[in-house]
Amino acid sequence: MKNFQFQNPTRILFGRGYEEKVGAQVAGYSKNVLLHFGGGSIKTSGLYDRVTASLKKAGVEWVELGGVKPNPRLSLVHEGVKLCKEHKLGLILAVGGGSVIDSAKAIAMGAVIEGDVWDFYLGKGAPVDALPIGTVLTIPAAGSEASTGTVITNEEGWLKRAVNSELIYPRFSVLNPELAFSLPKFQVACGVTDIMAHLMERYFTNITHVSFTDRLLEATMKTLINLAPKVLENPQDYDAWSELMWAGTVAHNNLLDTGRVGDWASHDIEHEISGIYDIAHGAGLAVVFPAWMKHVLHHDLNRFVQWSVRVWNVEMDVFNPEAVARAGIEKMEAFFHSLGLGTQLADLEIKDDRITEMADKCTGGNTRTVGNFVKLDRAAVREILLLAQ
Amino acid sequence: MKNFQFQNPTRILFGRGYEEKVGAQVAGYSKNVLLHFGGGSIKTSGLYDRVTASLKKAGVEWVELGGVKPNPRLSLVHEGVKLCKEHKLGLILAVGGGSVIDSAKAIAMGAVIEGDVWDFYLGKGAPVDALPIGTVLTIPAAGSEASTGTVITNEEGWLKRAVNSELIYPRFSVLNPELAFSLPKFQVACGVTDIMAHLMERYFTNITHVSFTDRLLEATMKTLINLAPKVLENPQDYDAWSELMWAGTVAHNNLLDTGRVGDWASHDIEHEISGIYDIAHGAGLAVVFPAWMKHVLHHDLNRFVQWSVRVWNVEMDVFNPEAVARAGIEKMEAFFHSLGLGTQLADLEIKDDRITEMADKCTGGNTRTVGNFVKLDRAAVREILLLAQ
Repeated sequence: MKNFQFQNPTRILFGRGYEEKVGAQVAGYSKNVLLHFGGGSIKTSGLYDRVTASLKKAGVEWVELGGVKPNPRLSLVHEGVKLCKEHKLGLILAVGGGSVIDSAKAIAMGAVIEGDVWDFYLGKGAPVDALPIGTVLTIPAAGSEASTGTVITNEEGWLKRAVNSELIYPRFSVLNPELAFSLPKFQVACGVTDIMAHLMERYFTNITHVSFTDRLLEATMKTLINLAPKVLENPQDYDAWSELMWAGTVAHNNLLDTGRVGDWASHDIEHEISGIYDIAHGAGLAVVFPAWMKHVLHHDLNRFVQWSVRVWNVEMDVFNPEAVARAGIEKMEAFFHSLGLGTQLADLEIKDDRITEMADKCTGGNTRTVGNFVKLDRAAVREILLLAQ
Repeated sequence: MKNFQFQNPTRILFGRGYEEKVGAQVAGYSKNVLLHFGGGSIKTSGLYDRVTASLKKAGVEWVELGGVKPNPRLSLVHEGVKLCKEHKLGLILAVGGGSVIDSAKAIAMGAVIEGDVWDFYLGKGAPVDALPIGTVLTIPAAGSEASTGTVITNEEGWLKRAVNSELIYPRFSVLNPELAFSLPKFQVACGVTDIMAHLMERYFTNITHVSFTDRLLEATMKTLINLAPKVLENPQDYDAWSELMWAGTVAHNNLLDTGRVGDWASHDIEHEISGIYDIAHGAGLAVVFPAWMKHVLHHDLNRFVQWSVRVWNVEMDVFNPEAVARAGIEKMEAFFHSLGLGTQLADLEIKDDRITEMADKCTGGNTRTVGNFVKLDRAAVREILLLAQ
């Protein structure tokens, strides 16, 4: 185990009806806020009405900024920053999924500086302050509701980049599993895959003596594998959604990688795919992960064997560990298929003509590597993308 | 799963050497603090010197209050409260195990009120404020370093009572596994048992659809079972201590009972034993738990079967689930024995002459029940104590 510092101050309000109490939470920070959301679904579902009624009841005024798209865009972040400065807003309330929350985090950092918040995403400096953020989560997936991360896409060059900072932990997040009932099956599948990916990125590490967090990660993966089919079969299964939603938050709230170093190459590679093709992040991860695993398998076969046996219930065969490891990868692919996702670039209708370009962007023209489990250069990323074809 | 609110703001500083940086953490809250500790072990080990050097370096002045005993006493709490008020101290820095931290929490609540902090322990009112608390943990056991709880013993009547409040989450806790190297084997055994108990109290619940937290609890129990023998065999095993220490914190930081209702009867019953006989809490729990389990086994046999199979690797026998459940309890008893602990009251040299008195105190003269999994009245508590003989 490595030395670490860990703190996650986000207050979780979990269960039916909490969105109707969100006004009181908001009022604890500010009476004049930005209400940030995506498309019209929160209006048709009635969530918008419940949230705004709660804000009114708590004497909170708000300015609205809807229109967040998947792979949230920098241009909308700039609009949000402008609104916060103009109206002197004191909190961003994000009502939506990871894209809305990530966009809110960017606005929160941008609203307190003179310059352009995109600089942080380019690694030029780090934030020293941010407006407080609150969330009402509608999609269990990204884990942004209790994380330090935000990923934004700059339409100029379609660059997709991340910032991590403790300053942007949401102060509170409302998690009502009922809000996930109306999600389209494809979005559920992508969300489940994103959560699995967060767990696998953390699982594949070179740090030794991490059996405790190994087991916690395995426990969370098994939970997903067992419950995802239930919510796909019955989208109104509150009990299954509850556990899935909470697992999605815990998967990414930084507890499960305490003392470890995660890999994150698959996320970096996927960001290049969704940056260019604007596909769903989860759909991209279902394609990248199997290829990444096949590429790095021999770096630490034992870790893959443990994962196959404990997570995927593959029977141990001490005489043929590689077969055990490969059986785990096959089970994972079958799981993604059972969710309705493809595991090849062709399934996303992506041809090979931009693979070299993606490998190049991902590694900054081969000036840096991605991943920690195995450090991948441009050629390695290209090989993985070719494996994913 | 039940609705819940969860927030744990304690900053964890985990690993070698963090106690030498504690001054900077303290200085963020106050430059004039109470340094609270137990016996002389922190002086002989050099920890006292390292902590005070760090305080000096950060420009922090302190008043000292040592002498905390296991089952920490109200009289010392009163002394601490007096010191805080007299010297206008702004933080309590607890250097020690659960007893020192629990005592610090009591002082933190008492220092900001006019009346007696014991009233909170009697359930008369709840705290609305507290001084900030920081800790340097020396014993992985109680989990108090990141919990809402404090347990204090009032020498008048030897009443041992608890308070839970989010106000007394430590602001930061230093966890350096090396500090556990010098613990006597008995204390290690009691600590491990206390951590197991925290997990089992949470595990045995009547709330359904809690498979996610079930699995997290099982993962943490398996970690303890695997690593406790290692640190007993080699007290300088940093790697094993790291995982054990972190598991001890996670076991009790309120994450693992999100959406559940734990039992806690065994803790309540043990408090009567250690309140009267002043034995170590962990040693008492090793006696109470097996008896409690045998008493409540049939309330939810399936839960015991799952626990036996998943945590203790008992082979499933669908034709005889009770045997599976009992085999798990036997394995737990064998585990406690392997730690060097007894599992009968006689092992603690406690005779039966005060069993009725303990059952009476525990249930307030049969005016209340203890436990949630099964609600136990005076007669039931007495039966459990008789089973434990």
